[in-house]
Amino acid sequence: MIGRVTADDVARKAGVSQSTVSRVLNNYPFIKEATREKVLTAISELGFTRDEIARSLVEKKTRSIGLILGDISNPFFAESAGVIIEQAQKLKYDVVICNTNHNDENLEKSINTLIGKRVDGILVASVKRDDTKVQQLHDKGFPIVLYNSSIDDPMANFVVIDNIRGAKMAVEHLLELGHKKIAYIAGPFKYLTTYQRYIGYKEAISENGLTLEQDFVYNGDFSYQKIFEFTKELLTKKNRPTAFLAVSDQMALAILDAATSLNLKIPEDVSVIGFDDISLASNQFIGLTTVSQHMEVMASVALEKLVDLIDHESDAFDPVQIVLKPELKIRKTTAKNLDK
Amino acid sequence: MIGRVTADDVARKAGVSQSTVSRVLNNYPFIKEATREKVLTAISELGFTRDEIARSLVEKKTRSIGLILGDISNPFFAESAGVIIEQAQKLKYDVVICNTNHNDENLEKSINTLIGKRVDGILVASVKRDDTKVQQLHDKGFPIVLYNSSIDDPMANFVVIDNIRGAKMAVEHLLELGHKKIAYIAGPFKYLTTYQRYIGYKEAISENGLTLEQDFVYNGDFSYQKIFEFTKELLTKKNRPTAFLAVSDQMALAILDAATSLNLKIPEDVSVIGFDDISLASNQFIGLTTVSQHMEVMASVALEKLVDLIDHESDAFDPVQIVLKPELKIRKTTAKNLDK
Repeated sequence: MIGRVTADDVARKAGVSQSTVSRVLNNYPFIKEATREKVLTAISELGFTRDEIARSLVEKKTRSIGLILGDISNPFFAESAGVIIEQAQKLKYDVVICNTNHNDENLEKSINTLIGKRVDGILVASVKRDDTKVQQLHDKGFPIVLYNSSIDDPMANFVVIDNIRGAKMAVEHLLELGHKKIAYIAGPFKYLTTYQRYIGYKEAISENGLTLEQDFVYNGDFSYQKIFEFTKELLTKKNRPTAFLAVSDQMALAILDAATSLNLKIPEDVSVIGFDDISLASNQFIGLTTVSQHMEVMASVALEKLVDLIDHESDAFDPVQIVLKPELKIRKTTAKNLDK
Repeated sequence: MIGRVTADDVARKAGVSQSTVSRVLNNYPFIKEATREKVLTAISELGFTRDEIARSLVEKKTRSIGLILGDISNPFFAESAGVIIEQAQKLKYDVVICNTNHNDENLEKSINTLIGKRVDGILVASVKRDDTKVQQLHDKGFPIVLYNSSIDDPMANFVVIDNIRGAKMAVEHLLELGHKKIAYIAGPFKYLTTYQRYIGYKEAISENGLTLEQDFVYNGDFSYQKIFEFTKELLTKKNRPTAFLAVSDQMALAILDAATSLNLKIPEDVSVIGFDDISLASNQFIGLTTVSQHMEVMASVALEKLVDLIDHESDAFDPVQIVLKPELKIRKTTAKNLDK
């Protein structure tokens, strides 16, 4: 991918206004020769040709993209935003961030806001499977790429991991450690990740001849507090789970919080696996066992594909559909089941 | 603070274009009576008057603000962005986020980007004390409010905590626990927070008759890896510190990571105090002792003050200068010094 240049860069370098740059490139009369020279020198010093700059002037792109996050206070989203902003800066794109707090109405508002700001394209990190607004944008051919999420549309552009496989890997790890009572802290099944990971969990359980306990599955809101309470309640029951799989590392932290509040030891009394591999997971003081989503690759590829879509808006395109392989990172929060 | 309305809201509600709203309000001829009715009904249903909407049309505001973060992958910044986005949504402002990675050049670029996007005002969460670009914006009267940071200018607008007091509270807590060898993991002294907290650390040490060991002070980059290495090196020395104060919870996590990698126990072998009180700090599995910056209040007030500045741009204004009280949160990472 090559670097971009804008008339603005040239104007700044030449110390003139953008409209002067435009006039020079369009061969307006009445431009002082010295000014003309300054602009052309700036262009060549920036390593571009006159034509490239002229093209950028007529492009009518705003060189900004929108990024819609589910919850910026969840490190997975924040860290992916960091990757996207850094890459976008290199490509001379600005990033306008909206945060939905996993609220469907906020998602629609965010899209309207971004379209109002005339962004060239949108990245969405969290969307329910049957979202019609995102569907409409796809249908219209507006550049949009989903990551860590997708909608039920064979033509959707997305970058995800194999969620079913990821959840199965996690459950199989717990089964190997002798756990038989495994809870799954999911979130609403209207999201692809949540639902697909549930499928993986279910399959791994049944393939190993165990029975799925519906009481052990949380599929309410992505609320730290609610998950904290649910976990506490589950852990005080007589027939309590000995292990937990969480839909995100953030939720795994809520489980660790709740278990510790009951004076249970991790991993001696309870094993916990997260999903995402946020940077905190590999901190040795915490050492969270988790399924990596390869967030850096996921976010970079999503941005790269979005920029491709923006650059070739009139071409016929196959949908961007990338499925990354999950990776289980075994650390300190999982251990042999001692509760025979 | 009252809710805002834009012509866009009216247009959406009435199911017409923004320019139709504008034409109705400006009494253009040739507007169908039915359309006129729809627009006026929408305005009244939204709880506004015709005048208010007309004013919003001539305001020429973009209703977007810029937010410049030091490092979006540091939960303090990400969580404060979450608070700001949520509050801004209520006030019908969009937030354009830039991330500098604590790089001075990126800060200048970010400001240029945001001005180019014609934001109505800017919030800055991290800036060095002698930054000239931020200084210039202040001088020009452009709406700008700093939080968690400030510049050396008596007219700067900022919301901070009493950093000197905060650091003293932390060091005094460690002294009471019998620690005499206390390291301070700061970051570059060009930042107000880093420097002021160093002053507090120094004062507390000398007021208690101890000698400050310069080897125990880190003032290099805000690099997780560098701080991890520095801590490891310090902890393997014969005359090693028994306690650490970190300039942020993120850096405290790096210290915990490094200490654990040496098989040192927290808090038995090493006590650690952070700064910020990110949500993770109160997670009982981690229980990080820290100095709270009252981030939610800090971020909300900064936004509120920024919006005030935007709304009254032509008025003479005293600078916004708010200093919050720090609060020590004693949790599990600090304990009595057993290393006599």
